[in-house]
Amino acid sequence: MLLRNAKLATQIGTAPYGLIEHGAIAIDGSRISWVGVDNEIPVEFSHLSEVNLEGRLITPGFIDCHTHIVAGGNRAQEFEMRLNGASYEEIARSGGGIVSTVNATRAASESDLVAEALPRVDALIAEGVSVLEIKSGYGLDKDTELRMLRAARQIEKERPVKVVTTFLGAHALPLEMANQSDHYIDEVCIPTLLAAHAEDLVDAVDGFCEGIAFQPNQIARVFDAAKKLGLPVKLHAEQLSNLGGAKLAASYGALSADHIEYLDEQGVKAMAKAGTTAVILPGAFYTLRETQQPPIDLLRLNRVPMALATDSNPGSSPLTSLLLTMNMGCTLFRMTPEEALAGVTKNAAKALGLSDCGSLAAGMRADLAVWDVDHPAELSYRIGFNSLFTRFFGGRA
Amino acid sequence: MLLRNAKLATQIGTAPYGLIEHGAIAIDGSRISWVGVDNEIPVEFSHLSEVNLEGRLITPGFIDCHTHIVAGGNRAQEFEMRLNGASYEEIARSGGGIVSTVNATRAASESDLVAEALPRVDALIAEGVSVLEIKSGYGLDKDTELRMLRAARQIEKERPVKVVTTFLGAHALPLEMANQSDHYIDEVCIPTLLAAHAEDLVDAVDGFCEGIAFQPNQIARVFDAAKKLGLPVKLHAEQLSNLGGAKLAASYGALSADHIEYLDEQGVKAMAKAGTTAVILPGAFYTLRETQQPPIDLLRLNRVPMALATDSNPGSSPLTSLLLTMNMGCTLFRMTPEEALAGVTKNAAKALGLSDCGSLAAGMRADLAVWDVDHPAELSYRIGFNSLFTRFFGGRA
Ligand SMILES: [Zn+2]
Ligand SMILES: [Zn+2]
Repeated sequence: MLLRNAKLATQIGTAPYGLIEHGAIAIDGSRISWVGVDNEIPVEFSHLSEVNLEGRLITPGFIDCHTHIVAGGNRAQEFEMRLNGASYEEIARSGGGIVSTVNATRAASESDLVAEALPRVDALIAEGVSVLEIKSGYGLDKDTELRMLRAARQIEKERPVKVVTTFLGAHALPLEMANQSDHYIDEVCIPTLLAAHAEDLVDAVDGFCEGIAFQPNQIARVFDAAKKLGLPVKLHAEQLSNLGGAKLAASYGALSADHIEYLDEQGVKAMAKAGTTAVILPGAFYTLRETQQPPIDLLRLNRVPMALATDSNPGSSPLTSLLLTMNMGCTLFRMTPEEALAGVTKNAAKALGLSDCGSLAAGMRADLAVWDVDHPAELSYRIGFNSLFTRFFGGRA
Repeated sequence: MLLRNAKLATQIGTAPYGLIEHGAIAIDGSRISWVGVDNEIPVEFSHLSEVNLEGRLITPGFIDCHTHIVAGGNRAQEFEMRLNGASYEEIARSGGGIVSTVNATRAASESDLVAEALPRVDALIAEGVSVLEIKSGYGLDKDTELRMLRAARQIEKERPVKVVTTFLGAHALPLEMANQSDHYIDEVCIPTLLAAHAEDLVDAVDGFCEGIAFQPNQIARVFDAAKKLGLPVKLHAEQLSNLGGAKLAASYGALSADHIEYLDEQGVKAMAKAGTTAVILPGAFYTLRETQQPPIDLLRLNRVPMALATDSNPGSSPLTSLLLTMNMGCTLFRMTPEEALAGVTKNAAKALGLSDCGSLAAGMRADLAVWDVDHPAELSYRIGFNSLFTRFFGGRA
């Protein structure tokens, strides 16, 4: 198939967006076989059946590189209680907070978890998302953590998306182990990681390094276990305070450090050196009404790749739009529309350690989103508007 | 038709949301003929064909009571320039700002304006919007103002929504009349209002009372002209400073005062006394990164009805989601989910002077939105997710 008469945001080269104004793309099966200028199509592709895109914009399929989209229940009632003036204590006493999501997730079967997640996944797909990361971390016991990861794998079978799974046993301390965080890490989290890996359920390993979660030395033990298994790591770091999590992650060659509102220059430099991607999550910043912004200027200056993700989760970011996430990255954090688009394509692929998606080039997966816009900046500019015209995932419409 | 086995957020009575847990609605043609408890359906409706909604939530069709959705062009490039560090001067010099929208609108034909607006209108309809206000105000000359209003009327013919038109000649001073704002009001704005009214294009009259727009005494002249024509008025007031616009509007018995971030207690009390609705526009607050919040507590205390609207426009609020507007009202302004839902139904109807929509009761238009949610708070809680299951506008699916 030959897609003709399109604008291409290739994400490659020095032009803004890697833009080719009058471009064409040849697709062979599930891969891109050629990308270039429309009137320079090599003769070997001239026999392909043509689709005239009438000047529309093609971007790589979008990649949401940080989600907790598999989760039991929702927290709308807690959202309402808080807005009616309830204190955090009152909410906790009524069973709210992450505990409520853990309880609902533990009570859910694998097919419940899949069924609950699919409408959210479909909302992402409707905006051209072709690759999706999904974390565990609401089980906090072996059975439920494994069930969450199996649900994530199942979603890949039920929808035309690639799912990358992340083990996040070190997400929170379960109530039944209050004040035993070391015990939890060593006797539950790490053994569960081994069991999940044995079932081939784990593509990467994550943790939450924060006063309210786990300390750097505990995260290091989880990362050591990941290293032994040959699994890449990433970290929820510097969201609410600076514990040096990003630097720790970088020392393990982490794929990404995520949130990073409180990241300092030392951490930025460590990430730059290690090739660790910064995953920016404006949905949580917006929902939690935070005021400390991630150090975008420092990241830019040090050429740390920046990705953008929904952080889709029932508590701090019940967000299922990557387009809106791009707008939030621009509006709240002053990222440019070009950075926002790179953040959900090229750099999101980097954050997941994927090298065959996120840009438009020969040999890449033919994951393409076609947009009814004149200019790629429109994708970040509009709020709550989906201009997707059509999509090709693995070469299929 | 009889809709059965539904939760009803009637917006009537003292229960939160006017909720009926196990409800039913009878529809006769384009009107609701009965609303009540599912096992108390009067025998006269028992012959109607039944639709089992399986416990889903029915709300009144949504009402977006403040939009500039008819407009030429978009301002994505300006959005990008600003994020790349351009100053307001540089943007103005490159033809940006409201001037660019005025130029694009003047250059557009009526059918261009309709064609450009329809995808945005369709985005609203997809979220259950059945009534939509549309303002003029990007023409600032007679021909273009009338063309905008004709385009708004045409949209009502092309889509199953009710469109309420508002004449907003006093929106900005056109470049060709720089420093002649009195002349513009008396020789262009008011004569254009008369011409538009003669063509039956005007349902209400609006203005923008602000240092960068028009002074209270100029707005008063426009309102006097509206009064002579028997047209209701409303006002963009106290968005960036406090010029006493809301109080002025209230003195004319205005339907609404809109934006009102800088509204003071005197203004709130004037609105309460006059029955003027407060239209809250978080999309512009978010986009402009304002910090001054509207006085929600004072409005609540004084029982001023609060509506929520998109303010959909190419500059300060390129927003086309009323669901996201509800979330923003809650997240940014601490409105409750119950206030948010009333803000896009009952109180939005009030802001438009409509008495036959915005709640579920016998005699009202059968504009209904059916949602795949367990609880109405979910509508405000989710971000970038549309849980509309189906809709009935004027009784038709
Ligand atoms: Zn997260
Ligand atoms: Zn407005």
